[in-house]
Amino acid sequence: MQTVQRPPDSDPSAQGNAAEAPSSEHEVLPVTPGKHQVVIVGGGFGGLYAAQQLGRADLEVTLIDKRNFHLFQPLLYQVAMGGLSPGDIASPLRGVLSAQKNTRVLMGEVTDVDPNQQAVSLNDGRTVPYDSLIVATGMSHFYFGRDDWADAAPGLKTVEDALEMRRRIFAAFEQAENTTDLDLRQTLLTFLIVGGGPTGVELAGSMAELAHHTLRNDFRHIDTTASRILLIEGMDRVLPPFPAELSARAQTDLEKMGVEVLTKSLVTDIAGHQITLKQGDEVTTLRAGTVLWAAGVRDPGMGGILAASTGAERDRSGRVMVSDDLSLPTHPNVFVVGDLAHFAHQVDGAASPEGNRPLPGVAPVAMQEGKYVAKLIQKQLQDTTLPPFEYKDSGSLAVIGRHAAVVNLPWAKLTGFPAWFVWLFVHIFYLIEFDNKLMVMTQWGANYLTRKQGSRLITEKVFEKVEVSTPE
Amino acid sequence: MQTVQRPPDSDPSAQGNAAEAPSSEHEVLPVTPGKHQVVIVGGGFGGLYAAQQLGRADLEVTLIDKRNFHLFQPLLYQVAMGGLSPGDIASPLRGVLSAQKNTRVLMGEVTDVDPNQQAVSLNDGRTVPYDSLIVATGMSHFYFGRDDWADAAPGLKTVEDALEMRRRIFAAFEQAENTTDLDLRQTLLTFLIVGGGPTGVELAGSMAELAHHTLRNDFRHIDTTASRILLIEGMDRVLPPFPAELSARAQTDLEKMGVEVLTKSLVTDIAGHQITLKQGDEVTTLRAGTVLWAAGVRDPGMGGILAASTGAERDRSGRVMVSDDLSLPTHPNVFVVGDLAHFAHQVDGAASPEGNRPLPGVAPVAMQEGKYVAKLIQKQLQDTTLPPFEYKDSGSLAVIGRHAAVVNLPWAKLTGFPAWFVWLFVHIFYLIEFDNKLMVMTQWGANYLTRKQGSRLITEKVFEKVEVSTPE
Repeated sequence: MQTVQRPPDSDPSAQGNAAEAPSSEHEVLPVTPGKHQVVIVGGGFGGLYAAQQLGRADLEVTLIDKRNFHLFQPLLYQVAMGGLSPGDIASPLRGVLSAQKNTRVLMGEVTDVDPNQQAVSLNDGRTVPYDSLIVATGMSHFYFGRDDWADAAPGLKTVEDALEMRRRIFAAFEQAENTTDLDLRQTLLTFLIVGGGPTGVELAGSMAELAHHTLRNDFRHIDTTASRILLIEGMDRVLPPFPAELSARAQTDLEKMGVEVLTKSLVTDIAGHQITLKQGDEVTTLRAGTVLWAAGVRDPGMGGILAASTGAERDRSGRVMVSDDLSLPTHPNVFVVGDLAHFAHQVDGAASPEGNRPLPGVAPVAMQEGKYVAKLIQKQLQDTTLPPFEYKDSGSLAVIGRHAAVVNLPWAKLTGFPAWFVWLFVHIFYLIEFDNKLMVMTQWGANYLTRKQGSRLITEKVFEKVEVSTPE
Repeated sequence: MQTVQRPPDSDPSAQGNAAEAPSSEHEVLPVTPGKHQVVIVGGGFGGLYAAQQLGRADLEVTLIDKRNFHLFQPLLYQVAMGGLSPGDIASPLRGVLSAQKNTRVLMGEVTDVDPNQQAVSLNDGRTVPYDSLIVATGMSHFYFGRDDWADAAPGLKTVEDALEMRRRIFAAFEQAENTTDLDLRQTLLTFLIVGGGPTGVELAGSMAELAHHTLRNDFRHIDTTASRILLIEGMDRVLPPFPAELSARAQTDLEKMGVEVLTKSLVTDIAGHQITLKQGDEVTTLRAGTVLWAAGVRDPGMGGILAASTGAERDRSGRVMVSDDLSLPTHPNVFVVGDLAHFAHQVDGAASPEGNRPLPGVAPVAMQEGKYVAKLIQKQLQDTTLPPFEYKDSGSLAVIGRHAAVVNLPWAKLTGFPAWFVWLFVHIFYLIEFDNKLMVMTQWGANYLTRKQGSRLITEKVFEKVEVSTPE
């Protein structure tokens, strides 16, 4: 036996500079002595915008993420509906940051923060020292204490979540086509979306588009336009953060598209495909083949890790309470940005009165917070500072369907086609990479012209069936 | 408790015509009396082209597939390498066939064929009656009797296969970046591709492109251009079905791109990440973090089902021996097309002498066979027939990398840029749907300009590690 050797013409220096690094299991990652170390945890909008803002600064940046890509979450619902592929809305973090020579990307999961040693620990045992730490890990969905609903009602935070929704939706149509049991068929053609915020509205609207238009000629035994699509919201209107008139318009638009909107309705139980609703004092049940979860957020873990090690305070959802410069009150070199930060300060920097809501968990807040902290760190290195963070609200928007959206600008409210057009433009503009912009534009153009959606693949558990018990 | 009712404005006729169908578990799917029933099993090139050819015929077509999409397999290797998304090369079968009113698509798996009752059984217990049956289920990869290698060396037949390859390749780079163990790092940066046919050559070439160009600036601790990429082929040259001069050129092109080509080399064992090769009398071992399988084909099951019920003969790989009109000698209304068919007849219709090779398992053969059988069935309904099937070889081609391919036309041999350009054109031209063409063109344009590949997501088992034992 003889081992095939690396051929002689290969470059022995190929091992890179880490050849000098210690090889212990609990190694400390090498840093350039004297360089200020910024560690960013999370490559979403907050973390990535902070990293990009630091691209030319005289310091070293380490961006740590569990995943190897940035995900453009505002379009994730389109992956769930088969309108886009995951690759269209994901950007490899290394690719995005490859030209920033002061930045390295680490794929790993942070398991601990040590504010005394100023270092974070990774799941592979390594530690990364920091001078400034930016935590931007976001929030995950929350079942209001009923984690047992997760199997029956998948949420929408990751690519895998979206593909699981896609699989369930298209498998439900296939199974409805394959059965002659009319009760089962009706259940399979019922789609229930829990939560009337932007994500729920987007899911409901695109689900209606799918059932009533995209698929209408594709089946021979079922009529997809007879699908029931229900949107369940606990408050008295959909899109609660929007002005009441836009909520009303969104509801009208949804109803025109064939969505049944149930407001003031709380889901009190999900048992397989049987859902129990409480509407005022009335308790009702209904059966749905597919339940999609778009309600509730909570800290997926990093907020807890940070609180445990720094004593940081948190709100009921687990968001970390931050000072008016987004740092921890006890640790001015530790910052929290994006959805995980509870920032509820007034413009004058004073903490908001009890009960004030934090800034909403939307991309523009995270982007501005990430950039602010990056600039602040650079100022601090020059022994100056910045005025407190102030969110510049350039408006919020939610899409309902083809030609329908609502846009709430500080100076105007848009609905219908103009709102939809603004939504389209904004989403393409903010896609991180040139090729994502191009791909999304192309796919949307094709979908728009053909009214088809090409990415409706059923993958993974292809033949997993919706097991529906007989109603009592 | 009260059940939420379907609202009164919904259409009760929505249940479709299957409302009249029997509701028994072992139901027979309804057909129009007197209409000739063509059942096609498999929605690959053979099955889909047959279905499309029958689109305007006065008969009924049922296309059965386990998956809900047609996959453009010649580009699957690009999904494995992160250059394309699965949605770019998949077309929902229902969407493609939705305008063919005589055609229904069934998502299901055929578990039995009954040539006496003229019906196929599905995994959900239903049966589908046929007057003519076209079996086009293709082949899967084969580990030469060593199915225990499958975990260590994934093949490339399904979307899931491609995503698993993608996951392993990009996770290997991440893990190499994260380790300071130089032996482990070298193992992780070694990629071994087994099989020097078109798929193996495409994988090796695009793997080299990835390591030497796409990723070269993305890492800080490793030098991806020092990756070893080995292509292992048992015969004396790569691309054995091509003329020797094209094989030689392909090997030179691959070597220029940094691929080590080992011909006359047999893989005799794969134990985790240790691979044993036999080159002549010499036995060598090497370690590779990623092993990709591109050798061997066998019947995944349908050939066996058909043989058991009809007594059809099969070759060593499980392909079904067919008559010169692609029917079974014993059952003239049962046809086999595409990779699963062993068609080895001469132009004059005589069976080929012992040892002659069947037509190759490539897309053009399947397309022509599918179309031929569809036309033959229509002729038979008019009480005429067609001359025996004859494959019109319009050439074969394999891509090696950016600007490099080999094209073997009946009247010319192309290499380098012209071959690559032909390859590009042919692949876009044959993509099934308009939006696939558009998406692939756009993504390729972007990849070409930026030399990036946007779809290199690590999904599913994100932190699954390559467990490499210490070399003896």
